Amino acid sequence: MNAHPLNTHPVLAEATRGGIVESFHRGALAIVDAEGTVHTALGDIERPIFPRSAVKVLQALPLVESGAADRLGLTDEELAIACASHGGEERHARTAAAMLAKAGVDVDALECGAHWPYNDAALKALAAAGTQPTALNNNCSGKHAGFVCLGCMLADGRDVAGFLRGYVKPEHPVMREVSAALQDSTGFDLSATAQGTDGCSIPTYAIPLRHLAHAFARVATGVGLSEGHARAARRLRAAVAAAPEMVAGTGRFDSRVMSQLRERVFCKVGAEGVYCAALPELGLGVAIKMDDGNTARACEVAMAAVLRRVLPLAGDDAALVDSLAQVTMRNWNGIEVGSLAAAPALAGD
Amino acid sequence: MNAHPLNTHPVLAEATRGGIVESFHRGALAIVDAEGTVHTALGDIERPIFPRSAVKVLQALPLVESGAADRLGLTDEELAIACASHGGEERHARTAAAMLAKAGVDVDALECGAHWPYNDAALKALAAAGTQPTALNNNCSGKHAGFVCLGCMLADGRDVAGFLRGYVKPEHPVMREVSAALQDSTGFDLSATAQGTDGCSIPTYAIPLRHLAHAFARVATGVGLSEGHARAARRLRAAVAAAPEMVAGTGRFDSRVMSQLRERVFCKVGAEGVYCAALPELGLGVAIKMDDGNTARACEVAMAAVLRRVLPLAGDDAALVDSLAQVTMRNWNGIEVGSLAAAPALAGD
Repeated sequence: MNAHPLNTHPVLAEATRGGIVESFHRGALAIVDAEGTVHTALGDIERPIFPRSAVKVLQALPLVESGAADRLGLTDEELAIACASHGGEERHARTAAAMLAKAGVDVDALECGAHWPYNDAALKALAAAGTQPTALNNNCSGKHAGFVCLGCMLADGRDVAGFLRGYVKPEHPVMREVSAALQDSTGFDLSATAQGTDGCSIPTYAIPLRHLAHAFARVATGVGLSEGHARAARRLRAAVAAAPEMVAGTGRFDSRVMSQLRERVFCKVGAEGVYCAALPELGLGVAIKMDDGNTARACEVAMAAVLRRVLPLAGDDAALVDSLAQVTMRNWNGIEVGSLAAAPALAGD
Repeated sequence: MNAHPLNTHPVLAEATRGGIVESFHRGALAIVDAEGTVHTALGDIERPIFPRSAVKVLQALPLVESGAADRLGLTDEELAIACASHGGEERHARTAAAMLAKAGVDVDALECGAHWPYNDAALKALAAAGTQPTALNNNCSGKHAGFVCLGCMLADGRDVAGFLRGYVKPEHPVMREVSAALQDSTGFDLSATAQGTDGCSIPTYAIPLRHLAHAFARVATGVGLSEGHARAARRLRAAVAAAPEMVAGTGRFDSRVMSQLRERVFCKVGAEGVYCAALPELGLGVAIKMDDGNTARACEVAMAAVLRRVLPLAGDDAALVDSLAQVTMRNWNGIEVGSLAAAPALAGD
């Protein structure tokens, strides 16, 4: 039973109750610079893992680089939501719909599927209105709207809706562009690695944490990217910093961090316990994968601890990140029952 | 970073996507008989862990043993919900309310706090009606209604509402009875172990998996329990088998298993990745704790794999448990993207 290939990963986050560790999360972490030098490696950073939604900014590079964003006059909010896993709030649905309108199509063009908003108030508002969610409420609708806008450019005069059909398939021209950007920025051969299907139906490719962190260092600096991708990365980082509520939503980690730290951090969550970040002032990229796939709690406190440790932070910046690195857990009566925190070694204690 | 005291636990469940293990869950497992003989031990089964809601049947023993259940004429549904972590569906709220009425009090007596129903349809129905949840929708409202009924008996002529106040505190006569039953059935000294506060505000005590599994073997057989507790355990098992939808709810693991297998299995989930089960025909108790606290997916497939391995099952019984031990994961478009299953060694492959 103990002979699992993945048995050496350190504990990155712990939940404490009644003075003891109740649950704990193991994982791996890479911090890499734009030259590819590994600054920190915890656990196995060479094993390919599915980055899921953590790489949306890499998948959005062609939207800007192709000229589609300029041609359609995409706003900061629209570019930010192209990199987002959002809560399906009304403002998110409206922004994604506006992108589709600019591309000359409507919600029927989206191939991500529909689900109820992740944002609790948005879900209850839809239920109270007696309506059903659409693909616009899907947390990936902005990314897909970005694919649609890219497709509108690539259609090159052909019927856009017809051209777009099947854009989630690996062999479609849109997805070929998206995957090429992923391969170029990570420097990892996607043709030779495991390929799965993501929640929103596009392909996801298994990539080592070292390569993911390297890609985010490139996004942070532009170094090692083509001129077009470097410019696109800068534009996307600026857009998210200007409209951080679009990349996640009310009360969410990524939106809170970037509302406070703006362009000092670009961070992005992915399903199954993945987190990536670009830190421009340090020229570093960060990539985390929790063994157990726990995103909401384990990854967030680990990422907050990394930010606190490597970035020089003070005042409100430090206070926010501290509050995200050690979270008090309260029960239904508001009584403090425990805490969630990065493991001592990760937090630098 | 690797010197965590809990670094030897085996992988019990795996999530697979694109042909590779995407995420995996480590944990510990004990299977013990009523004499205390350990039949299976995976990981550290001597480390005290918080059993959370997995021990509700042990905490309900005084409700029956005291005579309160008989005096108030509690039904199978009411006894079943006293052992439940339910979805807050209308039928659950109604059943808990009926228990309170029998005790001569109302929802104001409940000290578990209010939260929105865990059941998705119930949550949306409340939102659509423009109403707020009450403590009756709390997943623990049945357990607390059971405490209230016990308190009604213990009040012994005093004003019930006044006597009940503060029943969630360890030193209240109600909670003293409940904790004594937990100590008696597990054979573990609760005065010398870590004590935390549970989500519903009652104390939770850290108890080793070996003791928890032993307690469930006692519940399965009556052996090693007082005559009163043995009778109470039989009554509660029968009640849950007769009204399995009360112990969890629509589509939930415990309700599905017990709707099919009835008294052959008593199983109960607890927060932070805990599962316990009593298997009367084998005279065994089972206790599982996932390191990472993942309840919904990791624990369920592990428990299903244990049931499949130790119980002689055929036909629909085998089919149901097989379907719970290996779960196909689909995305928002209904496309199969992976599977969740017990680790090969646990599944007996």
